[in-house]
Amino acid sequence: MSPTDGQIWLWEIIGTAVLILLGAGVVAGNQLLKSTVHKGGPLMINIGWGFAVFAGASIAWKSGAHLNPAVTLGLAVADKTEWSQVPIYICAQFIGAFIGAMLCYLAFKKNFDVEPHPEDTRGIFCTGPQVKNYFWNVVTEVIGTFVLVFWILQSPAISGSGDTLDLGNSGLGYAGVAFVVLVIGNSLGGPTGYAINPARDLAPRIAYALMPIKGKGSREWNYAWVPVVGPVIGGILAGLLFAVTKNV
Amino acid sequence: MSPTDGQIWLWEIIGTAVLILLGAGVVAGNQLLKSTVHKGGPLMINIGWGFAVFAGASIAWKSGAHLNPAVTLGLAVADKTEWSQVPIYICAQFIGAFIGAMLCYLAFKKNFDVEPHPEDTRGIFCTGPQVKNYFWNVVTEVIGTFVLVFWILQSPAISGSGDTLDLGNSGLGYAGVAFVVLVIGNSLGGPTGYAINPARDLAPRIAYALMPIKGKGSREWNYAWVPVVGPVIGGILAGLLFAVTKNV
Amino acid sequence: MSPTDGQIWLWEIIGTAVLILLGAGVVAGNQLLKSTVHKGGPLMINIGWGFAVFAGASIAWKSGAHLNPAVTLGLAVADKTEWSQVPIYICAQFIGAFIGAMLCYLAFKKNFDVEPHPEDTRGIFCTGPQVKNYFWNVVTEVIGTFVLVFWILQSPAISGSGDTLDLGNSGLGYAGVAFVVLVIGNSLGGPTGYAINPARDLAPRIAYALMPIKGKGSREWNYAWVPVVGPVIGGILAGLLFAVTKNV
Amino acid sequence: MSPTDGQIWLWEIIGTAVLILLGAGVVAGNQLLKSTVHKGGPLMINIGWGFAVFAGASIAWKSGAHLNPAVTLGLAVADKTEWSQVPIYICAQFIGAFIGAMLCYLAFKKNFDVEPHPEDTRGIFCTGPQVKNYFWNVVTEVIGTFVLVFWILQSPAISGSGDTLDLGNSGLGYAGVAFVVLVIGNSLGGPTGYAINPARDLAPRIAYALMPIKGKGSREWNYAWVPVVGPVIGGILAGLLFAVTKNV
Repeated sequence: MSPTDGQIWLWEIIGTAVLILLGAGVVAGNQLLKSTVHKGGPLMINIGWGFAVFAGASIAWKSGAHLNPAVTLGLAVADKTEWSQVPIYICAQFIGAFIGAMLCYLAFKKNFDVEPHPEDTRGIFCTGPQVKNYFWNVVTEVIGTFVLVFWILQSPAISGSGDTLDLGNSGLGYAGVAFVVLVIGNSLGGPTGYAINPARDLAPRIAYALMPIKGKGSREWNYAWVPVVGPVIGGILAGLLFAVTKNV
Repeated sequence: MSPTDGQIWLWEIIGTAVLILLGAGVVAGNQLLKSTVHKGGPLMINIGWGFAVFAGASIAWKSGAHLNPAVTLGLAVADKTEWSQVPIYICAQFIGAFIGAMLCYLAFKKNFDVEPHPEDTRGIFCTGPQVKNYFWNVVTEVIGTFVLVFWILQSPAISGSGDTLDLGNSGLGYAGVAFVVLVIGNSLGGPTGYAINPARDLAPRIAYALMPIKGKGSREWNYAWVPVVGPVIGGILAGLLFAVTKNV
Repeated sequence: MSPTDGQIWLWEIIGTAVLILLGAGVVAGNQLLKSTVHKGGPLMINIGWGFAVFAGASIAWKSGAHLNPAVTLGLAVADKTEWSQVPIYICAQFIGAFIGAMLCYLAFKKNFDVEPHPEDTRGIFCTGPQVKNYFWNVVTEVIGTFVLVFWILQSPAISGSGDTLDLGNSGLGYAGVAFVVLVIGNSLGGPTGYAINPARDLAPRIAYALMPIKGKGSREWNYAWVPVVGPVIGGILAGLLFAVTKNV
Repeated sequence: MSPTDGQIWLWEIIGTAVLILLGAGVVAGNQLLKSTVHKGGPLMINIGWGFAVFAGASIAWKSGAHLNPAVTLGLAVADKTEWSQVPIYICAQFIGAFIGAMLCYLAFKKNFDVEPHPEDTRGIFCTGPQVKNYFWNVVTEVIGTFVLVFWILQSPAISGSGDTLDLGNSGLGYAGVAFVVLVIGNSLGGPTGYAINPARDLAPRIAYALMPIKGKGSREWNYAWVPVVGPVIGGILAGLLFAVTKNV
């Protein structure tokens, strides 16, 4: 049974907000000088993002816990989400991601105020490439998102499920997704910082533009389309491959 | 079925004692010079606190494994714990946390005796802010505790359960709570050290005041109310949001 | 029921490709200078390989998720895989591993292009010993692979299963294998870099030889047989011990 | 139903051997200079020991997976293991631990051969205190072992089980024990290196005495009784507390 529109609005907003609050929070904690977890390192960050997905998804199980337009599109292509509900999912995810970024700013308010290098804080909220090249940066985001969405579609945790994700009923629950996000971060995060989710990157980038952080860095708008287009392509490719192979 | 008063007394004391013994222990091991895990880093500390909750909660499943007054209050507001038992929970949690802090001191007795910087040992037992500002420190603790308690209320691991937590019967059991505490530590621990539990902070602070550690640091009593009030507000807000949204 | 030949071809190729993409990716991210996870350290690498197995195996559950010729041989010796399907498994695993290595190269294309030490990049794709000694290097690979394959055969997660792996139906699912690969990496990875899988080492080594990386290092062909022969022996020994002890 | 004597002999030997092979291996990999995981740090070591228990215990589920005389004694006191089988368990555990230590030496043979500081290799196989004081070192081992054994007895994963451990049938399986060993290592490992298992410490110490490592360090026989007596006391206390509280 599909979730209701109301369930999608409410739980995708709250779930995505928790995801971004915790995900942006781990980067803030790692980067800001006045923080007990300063320089915790990339493994701490990737574990943070992985279990941020776990926390947000567990909370949002009633809506199917997509939290990511690329997941929603992949599921729609795979015929597991109704196309009529896709716009609701995506709007709710963007709103939730914006709220999550703002909550992160509030949680670290004083730490931002005293940060000696505010020009480097953009990376807390949105991703950027190590070597800028639009084509290859898109390729990296396509590959990473493909792995995420194909795993979600193919994993035995959800085989047999109906039209939405139902990881919460399996043994690992949403911890399985956390493990996959963690390994994608460890493995494919190197080149572009693994957005693998348009809402996770664009909405916090907009939020960052609005935050009253003195001396903050460029929003890098010219790169902003990459972590949107790459994940969308990756999610759709995963849905197509699933549709083609599901009877094998 | 609610746990009996006797179950609450016994298991909340033992469970909270194990939680604080292991949680304070990981900070002691990281900070004290004579320790095999000296400078293990923030990820080790956060994994330590996360699985300290797992260990304590698994042991305390008969009482519902709250181990935290903010959890108890959130559950009461959400109508999942009887108000008449709330004072028993909270008293038992404070007693257990005090005992746990003292056991941690005993386990590290000789290491405290030879520590060259005893003035920095307060952080082993209780939290403190990186940038002191009562209002914003409370905000950070409210947000962190809200995520913890709302996750506990909303997670599918306990949907369908009765009036107490019943995570032990799901696939992940209390490992789910461990993952959430770990990610809160990684993400929202930066500004204030994530007390997110009044008993975890105040009872060990009192214990620290009583420990015969030569040259120990200030107990920072003027900050002691923040990690009590913030988590209480966060837990209650989570209970209210759950009550309002539970039929969506 | 055995998987069909078509299932083996399709899912072993895709699953092994995901395994190698993510596994080689974590080493690339750790080693290449232009990477957000540069110098993430050995624990990040081992967690990466562990959950790379989790991701690949979850995707490949329909074929039994071997992803490793040593596992296939051990299962055949233990009478859990049909000998007639063994060549299909192994061919598919080598093809998948080759594809995975190439995908990793594409994901990190620009980072390879600007890498100041391309001569050190062989380790991203295949293993090498710290102290070269063919006999003892084989011994290390035998021991590591034995632990992996014997665990798979003996673990309660699959007891009672039919002729293929069926970890997906247990509570931990393939996370159990991830934990075992992680601990083998932490523990027995030191001397030889824990290939413990002939396809994981040889196919990416061939792929590396074909990649257009300027100034790349030696392929070390003279060592290439060790991570093939060692794991094959280890897998077969595990199958034999299982066959001998299964009624105890 | 109790396991047979044959099951105890076979599986406690193999399971404890795997535990010590992987546990000693992670310390060897961390400490020996020629190792890919050299200086992986205390968190890597503790994760290694935790999942070493997972790997060994999963393999040894038919014997109840004690792998530790302190666990066996605690279970006997709690009336969950027959006293007549206790000596079989303990003998098998010591034999297995000795074999595991020797396998670790073989896996790292050449790395030991070229190690520039062989005098520091005792810590690979057995524990030692940071601040030597027999009384307080025993206290630390008692506390750590108490937490381990009481968790095993009290955890909901095994409530309702018969006379042996049956963690394999729950959702987390032996991963729960791994998490507890990990957190004990992170938290209570600092002062004495957390033997919390007489067989884990004494048998590898004897094996180390017999290994042909040139220039190896002292076996510290005068300390060898501490990690035997402490864990025995801790295990028995846990069994007694369980017996007293099991009807609450």
